[in-house]
Amino acid sequence: MTTGIGDDTAVMTVAPGAALLATTDLVVEDVHFRWSSASPRDIGWKAMAVNLSDIAAMGGVPRWALVGLALPESARVEDVEGVYAGMREAARPHNVLIVGGDTSMSPGGWVINVTLLGEHTGTPRLRSMARAGDAVLVTGSLGRSAAGLAALERGAASRISRAALEEITAAHLRPRARVPEGAWLGAQAAVHALMDCSDGLATDLAHICRESRVTARVFLDRLPVSAALGEAACALGGDVIQWATGGGEDYELLLTCEPDAANALAEGLQRATGSRLTVIGEIGSGPGAVSWIDAAGSAVAIRPGYEHFRG
Amino acid sequence: MTTGIGDDTAVMTVAPGAALLATTDLVVEDVHFRWSSASPRDIGWKAMAVNLSDIAAMGGVPRWALVGLALPESARVEDVEGVYAGMREAARPHNVLIVGGDTSMSPGGWVINVTLLGEHTGTPRLRSMARAGDAVLVTGSLGRSAAGLAALERGAASRISRAALEEITAAHLRPRARVPEGAWLGAQAAVHALMDCSDGLATDLAHICRESRVTARVFLDRLPVSAALGEAACALGGDVIQWATGGGEDYELLLTCEPDAANALAEGLQRATGSRLTVIGEIGSGPGAVSWIDAAGSAVAIRPGYEHFRG
Repeated sequence: MTTGIGDDTAVMTVAPGAALLATTDLVVEDVHFRWSSASPRDIGWKAMAVNLSDIAAMGGVPRWALVGLALPESARVEDVEGVYAGMREAARPHNVLIVGGDTSMSPGGWVINVTLLGEHTGTPRLRSMARAGDAVLVTGSLGRSAAGLAALERGAASRISRAALEEITAAHLRPRARVPEGAWLGAQAAVHALMDCSDGLATDLAHICRESRVTARVFLDRLPVSAALGEAACALGGDVIQWATGGGEDYELLLTCEPDAANALAEGLQRATGSRLTVIGEIGSGPGAVSWIDAAGSAVAIRPGYEHFRG
Repeated sequence: MTTGIGDDTAVMTVAPGAALLATTDLVVEDVHFRWSSASPRDIGWKAMAVNLSDIAAMGGVPRWALVGLALPESARVEDVEGVYAGMREAARPHNVLIVGGDTSMSPGGWVINVTLLGEHTGTPRLRSMARAGDAVLVTGSLGRSAAGLAALERGAASRISRAALEEITAAHLRPRARVPEGAWLGAQAAVHALMDCSDGLATDLAHICRESRVTARVFLDRLPVSAALGEAACALGGDVIQWATGGGEDYELLLTCEPDAANALAEGLQRATGSRLTVIGEIGSGPGAVSWIDAAGSAVAIRPGYEHFRG
């Protein structure tokens, strides 16, 4: 960056030969977060993390952020500083700089709009790149964010172990964008379609099916779910499969690859980043939809989508 | 652009050797606009134009926009379409494409956040580049947006000619970003500091003084003001000088240049773009502030700044 906040625009230099990536995401009070269950740092972290995840989902490298912040008159300076601190905290491990912004009064609640710019020196991996015969894989663990939201909303702290509660609420409040994982996976020739799992597996895999004009089969007993999810389901009366397939905001990466390459990719990703990669299904010829197969081999119905507090 | 709305991020190619410019601006209901006095197209136009003006103020070329849109549940589809139509209408003459966005429910009113990316193949002109001895110049005409806002707020339609009312309200509702003017001026070696006049001449010239560590003298009888401004001042009980110095949102360009080059720049800009360029003052050694000189040669006080509806 040559020039940052303070002049009419930020001025940056994109690496020679690199494509420019850009994404923007809104985080709105009482839609995406509540002050009663999130700290200013949590809110800032998440506003940055959801954008980092979008760049990761292309296999790119995040570089520069711009922040639009609409604030009620009642906003406290320390809360504004906390939100910025959370954004910087999420950005710092990836060397992302906040290079510009605008702040305004808001007659309603808080609205935070982060725009993130990144670079990609190879071929960005799109949702339209899945092929019949591909394996379907996902990084990390699914459903924890939805379970964490349920715990925050229903107040189940007394019926669940501290370790499990911390795992699921951290997954919801402080999601870790899979930036190194995206960069590594996006550089592997065997990886075809790649996206982030922000709206829930069912919704996001349906995007891949539609964009790639393929079908997908997912084996429910292969979904990577943690023990904390089972504990939370018991304590909260939730459903592990529903959280893992319909719950959103896990910000794991969802990808398809040449089937013979799946094991090598999982081993390589583990070595490169320490993160798990799990085969959960397969791509078939299409166009069509996602089918869900239970442990007995029977097709079952899954309700897609997840809900914000409102909207 | 390789890929736009629909994948995780937009993918673009910056021209080889060009710097990347980025700016973001919020437009908030009942802060920056009211539905009672602006159409959806007006609002969309302005949300894009204020960003175009920031790129123009660097002497750059605007290329790609991303739009964050928070909407109340009561928002009508035709209003959303109108806002987007206004954004595209403002963007089209400059070949700017909307390449990405995010939409959310808003428990409050409308919040529109446009982020605009541009390119610059030369040396971006900054606020810090003014030098003692420079002439101070401004494009076009000052104060019309503030007069237009006053007319819209005070409802003076019966006391002012239709032509004057149209001129000032159009300046407020449909500001024209000085994009070709910025590109032309930014390519002239004699131009030093360059910025857009969005917060009012007094506030913006003070930015140049602070960033460049210089002083400035402005001759009030040289300020470019249109006859419509005089008519509006009479009809509304306003003050031409106050509007021209403290009124914001004119989105003219404010610049300093080598004093001997001012006339040639004015002639060149007129030939290249049809726009007027007026010498309004001079830069002195500093650091210091702006002084205002009336027609009799006396220093007078000017109240800086302008007010949004709120905030």
